[in-house]
Amino acid sequence: MNDIHDLESLKLALREFAAARDWGRYHTPKNLAMAMIVEAAELVEHFQWATPEESLAPPPEKLAAIRDEVADTLIYLVELADRLGIDLIAAARDKIAKNAIKYPAP
Amino acid sequence: MNDIHDLESLKLALREFAAARDWGRYHTPKNLAMAMIVEAAELVEHFQWATPEESLAPPPEKLAAIRDEVADTLIYLVELADRLGIDLIAAARDKIAKNAIKYPAP
Amino acid sequence: MNDIHDLESLKLALREFAAARDWGRYHTPKNLAMAMIVEAAELVEHFQWATPEESLAPPPEKLAAIRDEVADTLIYLVELADRLGIDLIAAARDKIAKNAIKYPAP
Amino acid sequence: MNDIHDLESLKLALREFAAARDWGRYHTPKNLAMAMIVEAAELVEHFQWATPEESLAPPPEKLAAIRDEVADTLIYLVELADRLGIDLIAAARDKIAKNAIKYPAP
Repeated sequence: MNDIHDLESLKLALREFAAARDWGRYHTPKNLAMAMIVEAAELVEHFQWATPEESLAPPPEKLAAIRDEVADTLIYLVELADRLGIDLIAAARDKIAKNAIKYPAP
Repeated sequence: MNDIHDLESLKLALREFAAARDWGRYHTPKNLAMAMIVEAAELVEHFQWATPEESLAPPPEKLAAIRDEVADTLIYLVELADRLGIDLIAAARDKIAKNAIKYPAP
Repeated sequence: MNDIHDLESLKLALREFAAARDWGRYHTPKNLAMAMIVEAAELVEHFQWATPEESLAPPPEKLAAIRDEVADTLIYLVELADRLGIDLIAAARDKIAKNAIKYPAP
Repeated sequence: MNDIHDLESLKLALREFAAARDWGRYHTPKNLAMAMIVEAAELVEHFQWATPEESLAPPPEKLAAIRDEVADTLIYLVELADRLGIDLIAAARDKIAKNAIKYPAP
């Protein structure tokens, strides 16, 4: 997996990973969206009793766990976008342009 | 925003966007994790009554809405990772390596 | 709906409501769990940028919206439990007994 | 905890449980909403790879785990409503009345 260096190579590695395990039939957008929100919730769990300030500086062990949940969320998001033919970066670019109109800078 | 072409430039654009609106004090990891799961749920909402098969081919209008929610989820994920100094691609690479051990290919 | 005065009568009213609209085929536990988390996220959304202190005293308009989201979450939770034959109160009672062992009072 | 037989007695038991452990300061609506969505996600997790049909008949062990997650979600929902002075049954009754107008029966 040393060749994962951007979203595109991540996408290709995830395709290969799922294909090798015959997971394609489970990976519908419906199921991937569920899997993604489960990972997002595991991330939320790390912060649920923390004050907003505490959440800025998690201890090393907690940070390592958070890093794993962040990765899991990204992985399912990339797989979901891939199944629907969505270019993540282009989608984010377009959304930021919309947000710039919705929330003009002062 | 034409200069957004990868996760790194997306991160920098989001930093600038938040700074211009003085949103920094709201953007604690606790709050960003909440915002992210809210967007993830808006994505889930598009699939809640669909069959897994239907979720593979949403009509154009729905797909455009899904693309926006996917973008919002990515945006908050990038901001959250940035606040905690997490490199998203490196985190995903490490997680896939762990998953390869946990779920060996047949 | 004046006869809704506890979880049991709420369950029966929801059964009738879904049957009258022929929603039974959509109301699988998988779909109801998705619908429930979507409502839970709409609740989370009301608190995402609030400080913990602010969240204790939402202004009246916001409180009314929160009340609706709380209701939606409960509605899907009751329907989900009903589809699986789970008695909500008995389940909560058993879980609190487990928690009392896991987190003994000082 | 044998005296838990409805939402009202559940609410009182949860108040006592939290007070005995001095958890009040953690139990802001913001934090309780986070805790609730985390439990809702643990419920979603049980169904993420299941077909809608499979989700209707989970094996006994899985059903027992689901029952625990359903209980946890209810517990946090009751605590959240309690902190905000929301009567869960009245809120559900009002929401169903609204839904009856929004989705008239054929």
